[in-house]
Amino acid sequence: MTDRLTGERLVDDMTTAERARAERVESVLPALRAAAAKADEEARFPIEHVALLREAGLLGLVVPQEYGGLGGTLRDLAAATFAMGTACPSTALAYFFHNTSASRGLLPLEAVEAGLFTDEEIPVVRAFAEKVLTRMASGVWLANFASESVKSSSANITIATTARRTAGGWVLDGEKSFGCATGVADYYLTTAKLEGHDTADGLVTFFVPREAPGVSVRAPWDGLGMRATANNGIRLEEVFIPEEEALTIPGAFTRMLRMSRGSFVGNQLAIAAVYTGCAQNVFDVVIEQLTRKTFADTGRPIASSPVHQQLIGDMTVQLETAYLWLRRQLLLETSQPPLRPKDEVFRQWRLGKGSVTESCFQVVLSAFKASGTSGAMMGGVVGRALRDLAMGLVMTFPAERGRLEAAQLVTQAKENELFAVAERA
Amino acid sequence: MTDRLTGERLVDDMTTAERARAERVESVLPALRAAAAKADEEARFPIEHVALLREAGLLGLVVPQEYGGLGGTLRDLAAATFAMGTACPSTALAYFFHNTSASRGLLPLEAVEAGLFTDEEIPVVRAFAEKVLTRMASGVWLANFASESVKSSSANITIATTARRTAGGWVLDGEKSFGCATGVADYYLTTAKLEGHDTADGLVTFFVPREAPGVSVRAPWDGLGMRATANNGIRLEEVFIPEEEALTIPGAFTRMLRMSRGSFVGNQLAIAAVYTGCAQNVFDVVIEQLTRKTFADTGRPIASSPVHQQLIGDMTVQLETAYLWLRRQLLLETSQPPLRPKDEVFRQWRLGKGSVTESCFQVVLSAFKASGTSGAMMGGVVGRALRDLAMGLVMTFPAERGRLEAAQLVTQAKENELFAVAERA
Amino acid sequence: MTDRLTGERLVDDMTTAERARAERVESVLPALRAAAAKADEEARFPIEHVALLREAGLLGLVVPQEYGGLGGTLRDLAAATFAMGTACPSTALAYFFHNTSASRGLLPLEAVEAGLFTDEEIPVVRAFAEKVLTRMASGVWLANFASESVKSSSANITIATTARRTAGGWVLDGEKSFGCATGVADYYLTTAKLEGHDTADGLVTFFVPREAPGVSVRAPWDGLGMRATANNGIRLEEVFIPEEEALTIPGAFTRMLRMSRGSFVGNQLAIAAVYTGCAQNVFDVVIEQLTRKTFADTGRPIASSPVHQQLIGDMTVQLETAYLWLRRQLLLETSQPPLRPKDEVFRQWRLGKGSVTESCFQVVLSAFKASGTSGAMMGGVVGRALRDLAMGLVMTFPAERGRLEAAQLVTQAKENELFAVAERA
Amino acid sequence: MTDRLTGERLVDDMTTAERARAERVESVLPALRAAAAKADEEARFPIEHVALLREAGLLGLVVPQEYGGLGGTLRDLAAATFAMGTACPSTALAYFFHNTSASRGLLPLEAVEAGLFTDEEIPVVRAFAEKVLTRMASGVWLANFASESVKSSSANITIATTARRTAGGWVLDGEKSFGCATGVADYYLTTAKLEGHDTADGLVTFFVPREAPGVSVRAPWDGLGMRATANNGIRLEEVFIPEEEALTIPGAFTRMLRMSRGSFVGNQLAIAAVYTGCAQNVFDVVIEQLTRKTFADTGRPIASSPVHQQLIGDMTVQLETAYLWLRRQLLLETSQPPLRPKDEVFRQWRLGKGSVTESCFQVVLSAFKASGTSGAMMGGVVGRALRDLAMGLVMTFPAERGRLEAAQLVTQAKENELFAVAERA
Repeated sequence: MTDRLTGERLVDDMTTAERARAERVESVLPALRAAAAKADEEARFPIEHVALLREAGLLGLVVPQEYGGLGGTLRDLAAATFAMGTACPSTALAYFFHNTSASRGLLPLEAVEAGLFTDEEIPVVRAFAEKVLTRMASGVWLANFASESVKSSSANITIATTARRTAGGWVLDGEKSFGCATGVADYYLTTAKLEGHDTADGLVTFFVPREAPGVSVRAPWDGLGMRATANNGIRLEEVFIPEEEALTIPGAFTRMLRMSRGSFVGNQLAIAAVYTGCAQNVFDVVIEQLTRKTFADTGRPIASSPVHQQLIGDMTVQLETAYLWLRRQLLLETSQPPLRPKDEVFRQWRLGKGSVTESCFQVVLSAFKASGTSGAMMGGVVGRALRDLAMGLVMTFPAERGRLEAAQLVTQAKENELFAVAERA
Repeated sequence: MTDRLTGERLVDDMTTAERARAERVESVLPALRAAAAKADEEARFPIEHVALLREAGLLGLVVPQEYGGLGGTLRDLAAATFAMGTACPSTALAYFFHNTSASRGLLPLEAVEAGLFTDEEIPVVRAFAEKVLTRMASGVWLANFASESVKSSSANITIATTARRTAGGWVLDGEKSFGCATGVADYYLTTAKLEGHDTADGLVTFFVPREAPGVSVRAPWDGLGMRATANNGIRLEEVFIPEEEALTIPGAFTRMLRMSRGSFVGNQLAIAAVYTGCAQNVFDVVIEQLTRKTFADTGRPIASSPVHQQLIGDMTVQLETAYLWLRRQLLLETSQPPLRPKDEVFRQWRLGKGSVTESCFQVVLSAFKASGTSGAMMGGVVGRALRDLAMGLVMTFPAERGRLEAAQLVTQAKENELFAVAERA
Repeated sequence: MTDRLTGERLVDDMTTAERARAERVESVLPALRAAAAKADEEARFPIEHVALLREAGLLGLVVPQEYGGLGGTLRDLAAATFAMGTACPSTALAYFFHNTSASRGLLPLEAVEAGLFTDEEIPVVRAFAEKVLTRMASGVWLANFASESVKSSSANITIATTARRTAGGWVLDGEKSFGCATGVADYYLTTAKLEGHDTADGLVTFFVPREAPGVSVRAPWDGLGMRATANNGIRLEEVFIPEEEALTIPGAFTRMLRMSRGSFVGNQLAIAAVYTGCAQNVFDVVIEQLTRKTFADTGRPIASSPVHQQLIGDMTVQLETAYLWLRRQLLLETSQPPLRPKDEVFRQWRLGKGSVTESCFQVVLSAFKASGTSGAMMGGVVGRALRDLAMGLVMTFPAERGRLEAAQLVTQAKENELFAVAERA
Repeated sequence: MTDRLTGERLVDDMTTAERARAERVESVLPALRAAAAKADEEARFPIEHVALLREAGLLGLVVPQEYGGLGGTLRDLAAATFAMGTACPSTALAYFFHNTSASRGLLPLEAVEAGLFTDEEIPVVRAFAEKVLTRMASGVWLANFASESVKSSSANITIATTARRTAGGWVLDGEKSFGCATGVADYYLTTAKLEGHDTADGLVTFFVPREAPGVSVRAPWDGLGMRATANNGIRLEEVFIPEEEALTIPGAFTRMLRMSRGSFVGNQLAIAAVYTGCAQNVFDVVIEQLTRKTFADTGRPIASSPVHQQLIGDMTVQLETAYLWLRRQLLLETSQPPLRPKDEVFRQWRLGKGSVTESCFQVVLSAFKASGTSGAMMGGVVGRALRDLAMGLVMTFPAERGRLEAAQLVTQAKENELFAVAERA
């Protein structure tokens, strides 16, 4: 079969294996699309999507085959979140966060390979990493929780959640402000800081079972968009986590980060692929409408009016701009050997994140204008996308911040910190 | 008392009489502000606002004193809708539409004055005009219905609703797609076309009582913003309107339009004042938050970070830009003798409408970015404003269209038609 | 005669006296326009313009009648530089700098009035101020020299030129990087710092005769635009200035600055009027060309093509934006009593300066595009304006800096310093 | 030697053969850079560059080895014009136009291959094509002349120059408005229309020797930028061209065009590479200056100020945007098998041309602002680049037109014509 798959609009030179994985993604799109409007309206994660994606084998998409996964790479992930983004951006985002958990398995293994751990540490690291990967491959949904509401001037994410030693394990206290699939995921993969540490070396990772005592879902988060992601955040009150469900070697987290190829911890460009998928869908839907509807006086399509031609030209160039940044980042983060040094890949993403999200938002804004007053709805493909993509403007950092960080890199070769730690407020 | 009233942020040289009227407006703001969030959430026009505004005497704000009104002008109206816009943009918008009904009384009287009607027509025109004005002054809420969903390539608004002659009056059939206060207003002031006419000369105006047989409210319109305006639109099925509740002289409507000073039929700049009030409120709220909240690491205000300084600078210049266009238009439409010829005033508004709305939207977009992921809510001052002001981008015409119309005026001295008529679909 | 004068496009409610002064300006425009192209090409200040402006009485335009001037205000100056900007931006700019010298007379007199000087100081201040004003009124051209090439992070202008005490006067040493009419003006009104001072309190002002020993013109400054302004700057080597040709009371300069109404030391908005005049002329010329020239295939005007309509719409809105900022600033700086407090007037100019210059540049950039490859000339109205207005983007400060300063004012009520002093490099 | 060549900043995965060709380009850069400032100042094509490039073998860069050339492709050409653009944009542009002549050889041969010519036509076509290629490879400089000053609403280029039959050949009459290397090239490859034809099928191609009777150079074209390209255009008055120096089969031209991969007739993206090289050089030079120069008060680099950080961030993202469009277009036009269908490649260039040129111009505009008043020179790297890149905004079509054409393609699948014919004015 040679029909172009949705994901091939982004990744245009798929291998046979990639195509096979992309076909699994294609198979779930109709169900995602059918559920999207109502899920947004009810601000409810469609719980049935967990089984749908599990049965399609997609929970292990980026887990290596040796751990039971499908063996996909960042190319597969981006193609998948893009394709899902055309159908239901909320599901695509939640699915992205599940997949990014894989970085907690893959990056430590790469760090072991690179000699960043001692002989004593290696078995501990490897055991944790393999647990992450085999669980994902076995159909477990892993939410990934980092963000908190405290802010530092120097870092993107600041962690105040603490882990305190106790017999046989650890006690966690804190609050996570954002993270998809709360109340849905089987485990919350949770970043905390070891008590007594005040640098990123104290950052550690835990498997927190959804139903563990002391874990609660925060009050529903009434977000502007991406409302069907169960994004409420969690509260951890004296939550006990046994030894073997954690990776608590000081500095393990930061050593792991050193293996990342550019866009944050793990594959953040695949979030941008969600937005691009969403924007492409809006484009397709609106062009179809505007070429079908006609003016009462001339009978010509609405699309042919001068202002619509201008808006469509703007949408076209903005949409293509999003693709360009995304494809380049994907190439930079997957090319072997690396096409460019890591600092350049990193800098590119500081620019690219904002560029993709702004372009996608502009596509939808022009589509919104082109649709007129009667199309300015809370729901519908355009209204929903306007709200969903507004989230993209603020998540992680806005475009303006990324450009200032790039300027700093250019003039002072000084990187922004991704993570900092802080006392709880 | 010399405290600056809210409306004086826009109109900065009020007379004593204007200040007195503005104080009436100021008195209702707390109630509007208190009800705004819930009204948006429930997508419900706060019916109690009708009594509130009536008791404050504000339903006759722009009705001349000789007809029982407060004698305000467009300056009062703009100051009022601006002030209300800082508290509840939905109420401000609905209140605007009530007031714009006054144009159906004031413009015909001016047209009589200007000799545009024959001696025979004058008493008919005058009776209708006075009925509009005295009703408003007496506390009647008049919704104003023009827009329909059919589109013409050459005009801003196309009318397909028909009026057919019958004994003692007229029978109306049609559907109005947009118009505040459906199910709330006492009368819907309704534009229709006389059967058998196919130019704007056939446009005529009717008082349609809210509860008249054959009048129904359309299904709730689930708009992205301005949700508390009861904007559902109405359906008219064989609605009988007696002779004396109509102005049906062919060409009366278009002769009336010739008296307008520039921004559409009546005072459309006061809608832009709603948006500007809304944007000013967002600015104030966000600056207060960003200067109060601090970074965990440095203790300095969030506002002091480089990216926040950039966003605040952008907001400041955009907000001021909105004021500039608005104040200029207000000056052009109220100066006596006219500062500039009518075609220039008209052209200015084709540019100004879009410029104000784009600038206000940009203020809110920057505020949204500055507020971060945790502030990206459906409700709250910023989330609500983002949705309310998105409506501004599309209402009447988008900025891009206004600029193309201005270009046509510049190069061909060819005006865009405001109204056209069409057969019903 | 009731024809609209050029300056009335900016100042649209001139008094009779203002109109009379504007007619003097109108009378010199043909000569300015005729000389503009060649003056730019040769990068030569048209020396004959000095006599032309002197004979029209325009050197004393803003000097009060009691000192022999025409009694104009900032409104006259803005109207004049705007009008000249339509004909020859270079001459308009040089003329602006001459007029801004008047602030060295007017502001000290206001400061005396406001009680900022002691009884002992008053006669000295008054004598100097009157000398500035009577010289200007008598037909003397005063260049005004502040800018130097050294930069401070905290101030717009940094002064390193020093004044050292000597018998009967002062010895000046330093270099001025920018200032119109070098080699042309009768005197260079020069800001220096008193030896031994390291704050702005040490700033003092001197009349430096063009031909004084030790004064030399720097190498020709090959600027991108505004090439006919004799902008080379001067070098001062042990230049002796007698006591009575200086105002050297410590703190006199900063006390004088406190009387300024907003846009820098003196009337900087009248530079922005130069740019706006230039942009208006480009607009007029290009619209005329595009509506006259036709397509070979359709015979329709070039202006009617979709892309030209878009560009013309953009030009129209940008040009109007420039006017809006300029007119508002003019109102704020001339209204009696003041419409808004000084800090707001100041902040407005931090935004306005950049907004006007960016808008004017965009007008010309769109005009340049609309003119096509064949119009992309070094000279000609458009090519020249593109270069002249590019200068506006950088003079004093770029738009981006003004916005950051406004943000600081908004969040920290902290003003940027206009002047700082520094040691010579 | 593994140092990165200049061209590798654009083409980042060169083959060994490409690297070898790029090294030839690298070797001429110092001479180009050394001559650039003076060439611009004198508006003179540095005639010595012809020998320089010929001796480096570069006149046959994109001629297949079987015709004596270096066998480079569009990748080589883009890398070459980019690299030259960092040194002397004028030379890079003129060199581009020489190379684009190769399309008159390569495309006809491809069209023969594709079966677009009859057996009778094939030998004629092939002879002409081979003549083009072998001449280029042998060190002949071929200017390429299409543009004329007449405009059609429907096409990018309109040809009014006529070719009339005469004994043994043709007589040409007309005027070419733009085309590098007038008075320099050995031959002008000239497009004309056959007398009596009024569609693009009548377009034909001639070798016009520089010194042929009736050929004259037009008055010097005083362009804003790209001044060292000898861009004056030519006049043809009864110029006789013998049979064998022409390709005059009706429809040959349009059949040849059908073989083009997207960006116009031949490789137009390599012009955009000139601009990108120029912008990269400006970026490098300005960053070096701003990090080296310091503030007098703090001793910190100028680059560290908030406004400079903002401008540098903007430059960085704009420069990268140019690269993205350029690299994508290069991939689309060189991939085998084609990655995307031809209509998509074509549309991409309608967007890409404007996007690259706007981005490059914005880089230079921000650099200009960052350099301050003292850097706002006619010459110097920034001032020259501002003028050179302004040309990019208008050449072929402005960005706004490209976007409108893309909208038309999206909504009506209707392509803009590249060429039309017209009667001489």
